[in-house]
Amino acid sequence: MPKDIVVIGGVATGPKAAARARRRDAKARITIVEQGRLISYAGCGMPYFMSGLIENVAELTRTAAGIDRDPAYFRDYKDIEVLTGTRAERIDRQRKEVALVEVDTGKTSTIHYDKLVLATGAVPVMPPVSGLDLGRVFRLSHPDDAVAIRKSAFSRGTRHVTVVGGGLIGIETAECLAESGFDVTVVEMLPHVLAALLDPEISALIENYLRSSGVELRTGERLLELQGDENGNVTKVITDKGEIQTDMAVVAIGVRPNVSLAVEAGLETGPTGAIAVNEYLQTSDPDIYAGGDCVENTHLVSGKKVFVPLGSTANKHGRIIGDNVTGGQSTFEGVAGTTVLKVLDYKVGRTGLTEQEALRLGYKVRAAIAPSADSAHYYPDNKKITVKLVADAATDRVLGAQVLGEGEAIKRIDVVATALTFGATIDQLSKLDLGYAPPFNTAIDAVHQAANVARNKRDGLAVSLTASEVHDKLVRGDDFIFLDVRQRHEYEERERIEDPRVKLIPLGELRRRLGELPKDAEIVTICAFSLRGYEAQRILSGAGFKNVKFVDGGLSSWPYEKWVGKK
Amino acid sequence: MPKDIVVIGGVATGPKAAARARRRDAKARITIVEQGRLISYAGCGMPYFMSGLIENVAELTRTAAGIDRDPAYFRDYKDIEVLTGTRAERIDRQRKEVALVEVDTGKTSTIHYDKLVLATGAVPVMPPVSGLDLGRVFRLSHPDDAVAIRKSAFSRGTRHVTVVGGGLIGIETAECLAESGFDVTVVEMLPHVLAALLDPEISALIENYLRSSGVELRTGERLLELQGDENGNVTKVITDKGEIQTDMAVVAIGVRPNVSLAVEAGLETGPTGAIAVNEYLQTSDPDIYAGGDCVENTHLVSGKKVFVPLGSTANKHGRIIGDNVTGGQSTFEGVAGTTVLKVLDYKVGRTGLTEQEALRLGYKVRAAIAPSADSAHYYPDNKKITVKLVADAATDRVLGAQVLGEGEAIKRIDVVATALTFGATIDQLSKLDLGYAPPFNTAIDAVHQAANVARNKRDGLAVSLTASEVHDKLVRGDDFIFLDVRQRHEYEERERIEDPRVKLIPLGELRRRLGELPKDAEIVTICAFSLRGYEAQRILSGAGFKNVKFVDGGLSSWPYEKWVGKK
Repeated sequence: MPKDIVVIGGVATGPKAAARARRRDAKARITIVEQGRLISYAGCGMPYFMSGLIENVAELTRTAAGIDRDPAYFRDYKDIEVLTGTRAERIDRQRKEVALVEVDTGKTSTIHYDKLVLATGAVPVMPPVSGLDLGRVFRLSHPDDAVAIRKSAFSRGTRHVTVVGGGLIGIETAECLAESGFDVTVVEMLPHVLAALLDPEISALIENYLRSSGVELRTGERLLELQGDENGNVTKVITDKGEIQTDMAVVAIGVRPNVSLAVEAGLETGPTGAIAVNEYLQTSDPDIYAGGDCVENTHLVSGKKVFVPLGSTANKHGRIIGDNVTGGQSTFEGVAGTTVLKVLDYKVGRTGLTEQEALRLGYKVRAAIAPSADSAHYYPDNKKITVKLVADAATDRVLGAQVLGEGEAIKRIDVVATALTFGATIDQLSKLDLGYAPPFNTAIDAVHQAANVARNKRDGLAVSLTASEVHDKLVRGDDFIFLDVRQRHEYEERERIEDPRVKLIPLGELRRRLGELPKDAEIVTICAFSLRGYEAQRILSGAGFKNVKFVDGGLSSWPYEKWVGKK
Repeated sequence: MPKDIVVIGGVATGPKAAARARRRDAKARITIVEQGRLISYAGCGMPYFMSGLIENVAELTRTAAGIDRDPAYFRDYKDIEVLTGTRAERIDRQRKEVALVEVDTGKTSTIHYDKLVLATGAVPVMPPVSGLDLGRVFRLSHPDDAVAIRKSAFSRGTRHVTVVGGGLIGIETAECLAESGFDVTVVEMLPHVLAALLDPEISALIENYLRSSGVELRTGERLLELQGDENGNVTKVITDKGEIQTDMAVVAIGVRPNVSLAVEAGLETGPTGAIAVNEYLQTSDPDIYAGGDCVENTHLVSGKKVFVPLGSTANKHGRIIGDNVTGGQSTFEGVAGTTVLKVLDYKVGRTGLTEQEALRLGYKVRAAIAPSADSAHYYPDNKKITVKLVADAATDRVLGAQVLGEGEAIKRIDVVATALTFGATIDQLSKLDLGYAPPFNTAIDAVHQAANVARNKRDGLAVSLTASEVHDKLVRGDDFIFLDVRQRHEYEERERIEDPRVKLIPLGELRRRLGELPKDAEIVTICAFSLRGYEAQRILSGAGFKNVKFVDGGLSSWPYEKWVGKK
């Protein structure tokens, strides 16, 4: 008798699991139950439709060949029945039945399963404030939301949008709207945007960039209330620090796994609150599988359970579940916590652990920052990227990386994500045979560069301070020589730090001007990217200076105030 | 007493080794001996200067901060003495001395070493034909060559350039000149361009692209002679198949390692003819190190010795040698054979082994081709790439990949290069947590896609023929149904194969039109990218058809003649 496979949830994991199951089993009866009207939509594309970059919302439910993924598509192409507008109310694990209700009519029914797949996704978290029901206040969790936001944004008189939440979805929303010409304010409760993803000094670089691009960021500021006009439309966002006049608001403070059906059925959840699954993506009931945004994953570096809802993982889960509900034995080992996003012309990504996460987990951390050109510096249109590498000082294992800039940052994230999946050390990372040609990178790629900085630190050759440590010294009034070793014209015409402790000695003059520096002084060297700062530190150390450090990442990674020269 | 470190060769490995040695040892006496006038130049940048993309040749000898890397730079910044215009004539290993001669004056001297570094690079191979000494016949192995080529190319009346050699340097030269508007003919003796780097069907795709972009390719054609006019300038290239009228010629048929000094000193060379070194990059004399284009490397996949001269490897070698001549114990394990290049708007790369190389080495090969969008298909300006993955059918280990297309091909090469360095299997590759966001890739990245195709083949789900196998069947007159399963409008308006055996049944109609196909017929399905072709094969196999296969990579990877529809 053909097997009954029932899939609850029709966005990413669900349809993928169903289609994969069909390719492996021509006879099974496969049904997808989806409470919404749409199925198999590209949720990750919503910000780009919302802002007008993608013209037609139907693009998000079409295959690459231009075919609409509607129930008829699943019937004709996949021999899969899709019940849209149908909510799964309850799972009866004894009878192996799911109670269904038609959303529009209230009509109830039951469906039998041999294998059940939970792909119930995540739901937006809404803050506990009043005014969320005002007109022109949106969330972004369904293409219908994107349609409504776009309609509101492109209606007459909309100039200013407030985005509540500076996490992944909030910043993607903000950048899309800013790119489309709106005035955007982001309100984020935490001290930094993307605080769950990046170390503070990396967030700070993105904040500087967003602000210089005209996006208003109000970090460390808590939403208290939304207020509206006589038509019931939002006009004001009230925070603990002030008011924002606005024409519309998008609330995107995060999501939580949608586990209610699973919990009511007595399935186990894990430490993150998401559904617990084993490596076969089986729940605590071996006939019920779960995947996508409703489950937790194992972190490949830390081994801890994490909740990292992403469309890429959801699709991988779907394929594995499709295997396993048709007799396969596929496994999912975990995620590296890789997350990437576009922020206007910046590409930003992280993988593995941040320095802060690693410290919290008890690692002894060695971090390195390497700003670099993304292609040969003599090749036209090369662009800057900055790599922050985080390694385990005890084992030299790569723990994570953060990369950002206008250049090809994501390529470097993918390289580190791959390397750390296999437990690479900083030495191995530094010797990877990456593709080199001048249009694509430097002979020593930015990833190699970062790994080499970490190795130099380990070997005691490179002795550095972070920008934050040096900033603290400046603020505290410490007595030290802040030695800028760039060329004079860079110092005069580009950005620099204005402080009486700053002294300029171009690197090329340093060897013959050693006499100008007291041997017992504390000296902190700085340049643009930290290559010359490091070289200066080596020269001074080699000449017997005892207390010399360079600033990690140089001026290009200095997130604090700088004085900008003539240019 | 400070140590004497002598470095012979001043391009990439040499200066890198010297600079690294200085950072580790402030006291050593370090000397670079270079027979040319320039040192530390970016040889890989020469094609881009030659064609006018890079304005000033001095860019190739400047640091990222704009400082000229001349002998004064090495003296002031690095405390390294550089002897340009000085040839190393002979190594006396007993006395630990190198005999030097000044190129201009003939003046001789000797220099003592404690540690000697050979970074003598590679020299161009010239074909055994007459006419190479004609005017306007060039090779490209030094910035002076690039200057001369550019001068000639941009002189009055130059329209047509012949590039002899369709390997890496030949194609880079051809693409740069074609991009700058010249008429370019490439003469290649082998049946395909880039034949040492890519499998034939991948080369064929690049050939189709180059030809469609106006570059004339004469493959399988051997250079016999160059002929000139009364002024002694080349005007004609004679091959075994015809004549090419031309205004200038660049000969780039390959390079060989420059080992004469090493061989005369009795140092060992390896099976490739390049200098043999151990993992510390020590030659057979433990006080003599060698690196860069004059040495051979171990291939990380095959374990065999290979000669792959590249600037990236040369720089890695330099750093390691710099460590080891100053008491370090750094190692270089080998190369993955990664090579990438820009070909007009295409990015092309390979890493590991090609299918042909793997077969020659005795592997049982499983290959998969996956054409894909490089970013979400609904995201504007996504571009196509094609991934060919080569795996070991016995162990599932990834052996190599080739990627090409207008999209982000090099990112995928770097991912596979990293994965195969750690012995990744196709299953591991398919589950890598790569950075996903619609501007950067598809939820299932092209690399995952290729790995999944290979897994489906292994598991017997995907049964395919290569384009070459199907083409043979067509030519041979085999009786089979060539089932195109695209939408009717794609079939009518886009490219297709014209043959009476071709039958159109769009995938969405296939399940209800099974009766039109005889169950015992051989059926070969095809679509655009091979996703639907695979799906059709699964539908037919599931319905009891016994002899069904799809075409690997679909029409987008079909290198043979196609009939192009209305569009």
